[in-house]
Amino acid sequence: MRAPATAPQRTEHDLLGERDVPAGAYYGVHTLRAVENFPLTGTPVGVHTALVVALACVKQAAALANRDLGLLDHGRADAIVRACGEIRAGRLHDAFVVDVLQGGAGTSTNMNANEVIANRALELLGHPRGDYDELHPLEHVNLSQSTNDAYPTAVRIALQTGAGELRDGLTGLADAFSVKAAAFAPVVKMGRTQLQDAVPMTLGQEFGAFAATVREDVERLAEAGRLLLEINLGGTAIGTGLNAPDRYAGTVCAHLREVTGLPLRTAPDLVEATWDVGAFVQLSGVLKRIAVKLSKICNDLRLLSSGPRTGLGEINLPPVQAGSSIMPGKVNPVIPEAVNQVAYRVIGHDTTVTLAAEAGQLQLNAFEPVIAHSLLDSLALLTRACATLTERCVTGITANPDHLRSNVDRAIGTVTALNPVIGYTAATGVAAEALATGRSIRALVLERALLTEEQLDRLLSPENLAFATGAPQTP
Amino acid sequence: MRAPATAPQRTEHDLLGERDVPAGAYYGVHTLRAVENFPLTGTPVGVHTALVVALACVKQAAALANRDLGLLDHGRADAIVRACGEIRAGRLHDAFVVDVLQGGAGTSTNMNANEVIANRALELLGHPRGDYDELHPLEHVNLSQSTNDAYPTAVRIALQTGAGELRDGLTGLADAFSVKAAAFAPVVKMGRTQLQDAVPMTLGQEFGAFAATVREDVERLAEAGRLLLEINLGGTAIGTGLNAPDRYAGTVCAHLREVTGLPLRTAPDLVEATWDVGAFVQLSGVLKRIAVKLSKICNDLRLLSSGPRTGLGEINLPPVQAGSSIMPGKVNPVIPEAVNQVAYRVIGHDTTVTLAAEAGQLQLNAFEPVIAHSLLDSLALLTRACATLTERCVTGITANPDHLRSNVDRAIGTVTALNPVIGYTAATGVAAEALATGRSIRALVLERALLTEEQLDRLLSPENLAFATGAPQTP
Amino acid sequence: MRAPATAPQRTEHDLLGERDVPAGAYYGVHTLRAVENFPLTGTPVGVHTALVVALACVKQAAALANRDLGLLDHGRADAIVRACGEIRAGRLHDAFVVDVLQGGAGTSTNMNANEVIANRALELLGHPRGDYDELHPLEHVNLSQSTNDAYPTAVRIALQTGAGELRDGLTGLADAFSVKAAAFAPVVKMGRTQLQDAVPMTLGQEFGAFAATVREDVERLAEAGRLLLEINLGGTAIGTGLNAPDRYAGTVCAHLREVTGLPLRTAPDLVEATWDVGAFVQLSGVLKRIAVKLSKICNDLRLLSSGPRTGLGEINLPPVQAGSSIMPGKVNPVIPEAVNQVAYRVIGHDTTVTLAAEAGQLQLNAFEPVIAHSLLDSLALLTRACATLTERCVTGITANPDHLRSNVDRAIGTVTALNPVIGYTAATGVAAEALATGRSIRALVLERALLTEEQLDRLLSPENLAFATGAPQTP
Amino acid sequence: MRAPATAPQRTEHDLLGERDVPAGAYYGVHTLRAVENFPLTGTPVGVHTALVVALACVKQAAALANRDLGLLDHGRADAIVRACGEIRAGRLHDAFVVDVLQGGAGTSTNMNANEVIANRALELLGHPRGDYDELHPLEHVNLSQSTNDAYPTAVRIALQTGAGELRDGLTGLADAFSVKAAAFAPVVKMGRTQLQDAVPMTLGQEFGAFAATVREDVERLAEAGRLLLEINLGGTAIGTGLNAPDRYAGTVCAHLREVTGLPLRTAPDLVEATWDVGAFVQLSGVLKRIAVKLSKICNDLRLLSSGPRTGLGEINLPPVQAGSSIMPGKVNPVIPEAVNQVAYRVIGHDTTVTLAAEAGQLQLNAFEPVIAHSLLDSLALLTRACATLTERCVTGITANPDHLRSNVDRAIGTVTALNPVIGYTAATGVAAEALATGRSIRALVLERALLTEEQLDRLLSPENLAFATGAPQTP
Repeated sequence: MRAPATAPQRTEHDLLGERDVPAGAYYGVHTLRAVENFPLTGTPVGVHTALVVALACVKQAAALANRDLGLLDHGRADAIVRACGEIRAGRLHDAFVVDVLQGGAGTSTNMNANEVIANRALELLGHPRGDYDELHPLEHVNLSQSTNDAYPTAVRIALQTGAGELRDGLTGLADAFSVKAAAFAPVVKMGRTQLQDAVPMTLGQEFGAFAATVREDVERLAEAGRLLLEINLGGTAIGTGLNAPDRYAGTVCAHLREVTGLPLRTAPDLVEATWDVGAFVQLSGVLKRIAVKLSKICNDLRLLSSGPRTGLGEINLPPVQAGSSIMPGKVNPVIPEAVNQVAYRVIGHDTTVTLAAEAGQLQLNAFEPVIAHSLLDSLALLTRACATLTERCVTGITANPDHLRSNVDRAIGTVTALNPVIGYTAATGVAAEALATGRSIRALVLERALLTEEQLDRLLSPENLAFATGAPQTP
Repeated sequence: MRAPATAPQRTEHDLLGERDVPAGAYYGVHTLRAVENFPLTGTPVGVHTALVVALACVKQAAALANRDLGLLDHGRADAIVRACGEIRAGRLHDAFVVDVLQGGAGTSTNMNANEVIANRALELLGHPRGDYDELHPLEHVNLSQSTNDAYPTAVRIALQTGAGELRDGLTGLADAFSVKAAAFAPVVKMGRTQLQDAVPMTLGQEFGAFAATVREDVERLAEAGRLLLEINLGGTAIGTGLNAPDRYAGTVCAHLREVTGLPLRTAPDLVEATWDVGAFVQLSGVLKRIAVKLSKICNDLRLLSSGPRTGLGEINLPPVQAGSSIMPGKVNPVIPEAVNQVAYRVIGHDTTVTLAAEAGQLQLNAFEPVIAHSLLDSLALLTRACATLTERCVTGITANPDHLRSNVDRAIGTVTALNPVIGYTAATGVAAEALATGRSIRALVLERALLTEEQLDRLLSPENLAFATGAPQTP
Repeated sequence: MRAPATAPQRTEHDLLGERDVPAGAYYGVHTLRAVENFPLTGTPVGVHTALVVALACVKQAAALANRDLGLLDHGRADAIVRACGEIRAGRLHDAFVVDVLQGGAGTSTNMNANEVIANRALELLGHPRGDYDELHPLEHVNLSQSTNDAYPTAVRIALQTGAGELRDGLTGLADAFSVKAAAFAPVVKMGRTQLQDAVPMTLGQEFGAFAATVREDVERLAEAGRLLLEINLGGTAIGTGLNAPDRYAGTVCAHLREVTGLPLRTAPDLVEATWDVGAFVQLSGVLKRIAVKLSKICNDLRLLSSGPRTGLGEINLPPVQAGSSIMPGKVNPVIPEAVNQVAYRVIGHDTTVTLAAEAGQLQLNAFEPVIAHSLLDSLALLTRACATLTERCVTGITANPDHLRSNVDRAIGTVTALNPVIGYTAATGVAAEALATGRSIRALVLERALLTEEQLDRLLSPENLAFATGAPQTP
Repeated sequence: MRAPATAPQRTEHDLLGERDVPAGAYYGVHTLRAVENFPLTGTPVGVHTALVVALACVKQAAALANRDLGLLDHGRADAIVRACGEIRAGRLHDAFVVDVLQGGAGTSTNMNANEVIANRALELLGHPRGDYDELHPLEHVNLSQSTNDAYPTAVRIALQTGAGELRDGLTGLADAFSVKAAAFAPVVKMGRTQLQDAVPMTLGQEFGAFAATVREDVERLAEAGRLLLEINLGGTAIGTGLNAPDRYAGTVCAHLREVTGLPLRTAPDLVEATWDVGAFVQLSGVLKRIAVKLSKICNDLRLLSSGPRTGLGEINLPPVQAGSSIMPGKVNPVIPEAVNQVAYRVIGHDTTVTLAAEAGQLQLNAFEPVIAHSLLDSLALLTRACATLTERCVTGITANPDHLRSNVDRAIGTVTALNPVIGYTAATGVAAEALATGRSIRALVLERALLTEEQLDRLLSPENLAFATGAPQTP
């Protein structure tokens, strides 16, 4: 991150004095000090691409608003806009070098953005980097802003981006489950409650439920995302808008809507909006919900595919790697296991977000960087987990229909499905003998001539069992 | 709970054999065994009044639907409906004696309800308790149901009730903050970011933000509550509706809508709805968000009222009890402290709900009792915390306007508000001298004749500072 | 809690003015106000028997120390000691009526104790309740103490008591598992990793591991308990010992050691000891560890007993109640399920404790009441869960040895155990054919004449497999 | 990670078939598949230097044990040992490319190690990479091991390393606080309980308590670390030691003790030790305790340094960067804020570890990779946080003794310290007038001639107040 001592340097200064910065660096003295102050995770904020892009969007919108309101000349505004455009296009991200964990409520990330944009804009204007008399990170790039409104606004936009990607990932996963649900519609199996044999159902219903539950969360995520559209840009330091002109909030929001394509709106109470992190807590709760569901599904997939000889053995997950360094031929459910672990991370991040949110004091929450980092990380993890679960597991799942059918024939609970036809008394008699002798329900029903083979097959057919999926809806 | 050995007994039996039950008990053998099996918290499920009432609603709707569909004769249906009506009116709750924590996915709570309703209905029909040949807990009260659809449906209704009460509590609290916001509108003070002096604002803005943030959560709670309206009644054991007649789901839902007055609807995928606890996780996330906000507000109240001599001393909380067993005259912020602790409990309950939700397997989540107990407890705690915070703290808060004004005059950050008039250079000069000498901004500005007293007062007037609350909205 | 309006009253007063208290109440005005201020859980602090007893121990030791140091006359000291003795013997607990959740860092609980002891001591001295000129809750019962040293000291003693009971509960559970381990020593079964068939082992080894892991936690709990022996009595308000005589800390600790029988010691840094809640966090971490282990074991028990026809079916849990309101004959693993839920509560309480501990500020942690309540609740829950798991589940578990043996004969992984004798190449050939044909390892090995039946039996005998339990130890 | 298509490749194969691997890669086909299967965090396992080194230690010890027992010839053993030595010296870490999050209970990390070591050993023996007939990742490097014993053993060793570094970091921080405690010993200030003015103390006592509390955790960490010394090497797949020779466990443990210098021992119950992750849960609990304490301390530092004009203003944190992009001259407590955020991450990681630990099933916990990653991350974060807090904050803290002394003179609670001399009645009178008039205690005491200036100074001198730090110890 820092150039060797012999590399050419330029001198910058701040409140604390002078410091040499590598001449080739787009960042400046504020970034340099932050890098030194926060050697915590080793992960630069630039890994959060969506956040870097969002910062560029905010700075671009601010430059345009400042230009419109006569606070910034066209030349500088234009250079800032061009620099921001480059960052939005994916360039210069490696100049965002401050640690993802940092004190200062995002000041260092904001200053990193201000400095990179200023220096790139200076280049575009034909000036050397560091020539801040011409174009200044604070006085021009950060004009009419405070970290306390610029940074959270960028975080919200970045989270919107991430949430959109996750919605796509969830939809892809739900689609894959739906495909399997259709394929497994004819496969009859025993349902289980509390891990005990219950009553028959179809494997299609089981996979259809996975699809349905994942699809619901696409909606929940969209709902949580709408809270992120409310921004506090224009509130400056504490939401009173001090040092920003009257029409600034409205103007910059309009520009930001255009730049991002998002239906952003200015919060009705900017003082509240400056310190409130409720939208982040809400999003975190929804991400936790998604994690809980994915984990539950993966637990089920691992359980249903347990075996091959001494487990439930209902389905087969596609092998993606050798399973054991010692037991030949062993294939393990490594993809669901990985997704479980992603879920545990996301749930852990929710705890982190909760603590950071609760710790906010007075007019600002100083702990937004860890909230932003945790949420962006959770979004990325879940998105990648959905993709890998879809592609490397769900789409390749196969069923063992014979084993499943044989279970239905054997299980006591099957008698429940015969109740309506053979009557409760006869059913109880069959169940009792099955329990006492270990024989199968099918064998006993046939032996007692209570039903013919055909009748049995019809009663236990997928059509007869699959009531739920097409449940008659209330008006 | 259990009568002395000499009390008259009646004999009941179940799958495991015969047991004596106190002759005067409305509950029966299933409840008795559950009481013995789960001596865990010592808290009977009857403490959750809303859940007991909701169970009676479900059983009443089921009886009506069974009657409509010709499965239950009018005499028994009527007796069941009357027994349920009594429970809904608040009677017989002390017969709900199973522990709030229990295995079996709610079976014991469901059986407790079935037995109490059956025995009360028997009484109403002129039969002795326990005369189950006449009216049976399972064959009549539980007809067309499984614990797995009846219990979660009741839990959802109970949570709706609790959420409604919490919405009222939050609204009351927000109203109290709004009253204070109006009263404190003329009080100018220093805002703080990262606990450091920032720029001026009004105390009215600060309390207005509390009102705004609490009011938002009334909406979030309503949003989460809507997910609870989707029920799985009619799905029976695993959502396939086995053993319930075709039209049952629709009929019972219609009756339950009428009995409860809630716009309930049958879930589109009953297999998913049987095991999915996503609505509970979502509600838990919102309750955690509420807890986080209340805790943040209480942290602020405690901080702003710190002192009386060596703290921030901005506001005074009303004394509600003596503060110290050793230091005379000490009054402590005990009400906010209590609310903080309620928040920590609610956040802890969210962890519990998360774990229980993730642990669900295959066609049922066996851990719904701990989810229900935790959520009902969180709702009750938050509702009571809102009331006590409103009545015993917020409504009695007073401000120390002179101290606050004097802070504004002294604080360096105040110069930021003068920038637009005296210019950045003059402002920086004043700030520098203030820092160096410890003198107040006001004194220096007047000494340097940069502004008159009148001008200063106007620039630092509440009207001039209170931009944020009436922020111009984007279209 | 409060007597009807017509009941006789006595008048007491405090800092805030006069209030009527029921004449028959042992508590006084401070308690009354606290009851009104904290209507939060509805659970009185008296439910924590061990805490009430510990408070009495502290007050008794303080009275004796004050008497020894000439601060309290023998008559009053003796009356206080007698009153404390009654409370320690289990009387008067219903007079501890303040809510378990309360602001004020335990002041209300401490005052409740002071008032009850003062009024009972007054009675013993022949004075009416409320005659505080004779013997005063603060000036005599609370003499040389502050809530800030008396309350945490009592909490620590109460937690010691609770931890001792839990150690007994864990030992009982471990013993029950050891008994089963011995009984199941001859039962050979397939071990599983990642839910996939791995290699053979004995069921005795599996249950022996449960015993071992539970037994370890008896040690961990003892270790965490030792931190609780360090008390801050004598530190008074903030640990500087203000208002307590020089020799007080040593004297009262000696008396408290005698009263409680615990090897208590005064903390080396009383300022730190006054605000530090590290010992509570440590205990909470260990309780969480215990919860995690119990939950894992219960998960395994539920999984191993899944079936009866379509699950793993390795063991049978004793039936303790009917399992279903709809499916006849279904028996569910309700005891392990209940223990799982206890574990989720305990883990949730750990989150609560963490938040409360982190929130402590400056010279005191104001949130000790929620810490104490959560930990005492966790201890009680775990203790009862151990008992119910031991008595109603573990001791009645039976195995299905034939099914297990047949699994060993069928499973591919069994070939791993034959490797050393038949060689890797032959083993791989057998495995390949088993995989391809679905036939059992045993059948193929015999068919190929690689081993005799006797050899096979010996290689797969418990003696040959049970290496691990008697693992040769490193010196 | 993967070379461009045109790079030279070598072909490897596994259970699933053939794959091309970059000819220059030290890793092989198993690693390649894992990289493709787990594109989750983007963080390669190689970032955990201590884990890579620990894996090399385990493999080296295994090679030596296999050689001693005649299972591995000297040539291969020697080559493996040399390759391991290079890794232990810090080389080849960039070849550990599998993601830190992965399914398979660590199999992929173990295989990555096996392949890198095999290929480097092949090079050292003069063979090309991939020439596994000469030296095989599984048959030679992994000989007598399973992932299930080799991987957890390495994780334990790595955590030991990390815990050692954290102990150093904590000691450094405690030392820095002790230095400040000595420097601030003469500074008298008001202590606060529940944020309200309490009684006087010294700033030295306050910082001394920080030192004491941090120092305690060095012990707790050592205690938790001792549990990590118990390893399961030799248990192979499920702890039964299948496929490892009788004397292997003892021999390899002896070699590993020598290689690592740690007093490792073989677990007494290897079946339990294979699935049990209790030692990780315990460590996580202690790391959470450390996080809670650091967070509390940082909260206090931020509170005590709040101001400069309108806060507590007791101490000054050294400025390390400009504090605001909008408010000139503002300096914020960014270092403590960063440490708070580290604490929230560590507490979040504890939640992750808890969930992963609870999810272990039967003979193995498949989720050890996320446990290992979370704990190693927490250790690194806390270690760096201690260093940055020590160097960039604590060592530069200064006090404002005049302001603090003036607070003592003004605060009502100061009268508590005068009680023993002027008597309770006089003290109460002074307090009452101070409360009513707003005047200082000092002024009133002098005016009423209750004490001379000298007497007052002596009573409020550091010597008179600092009882606690030198508390008389119980024998």
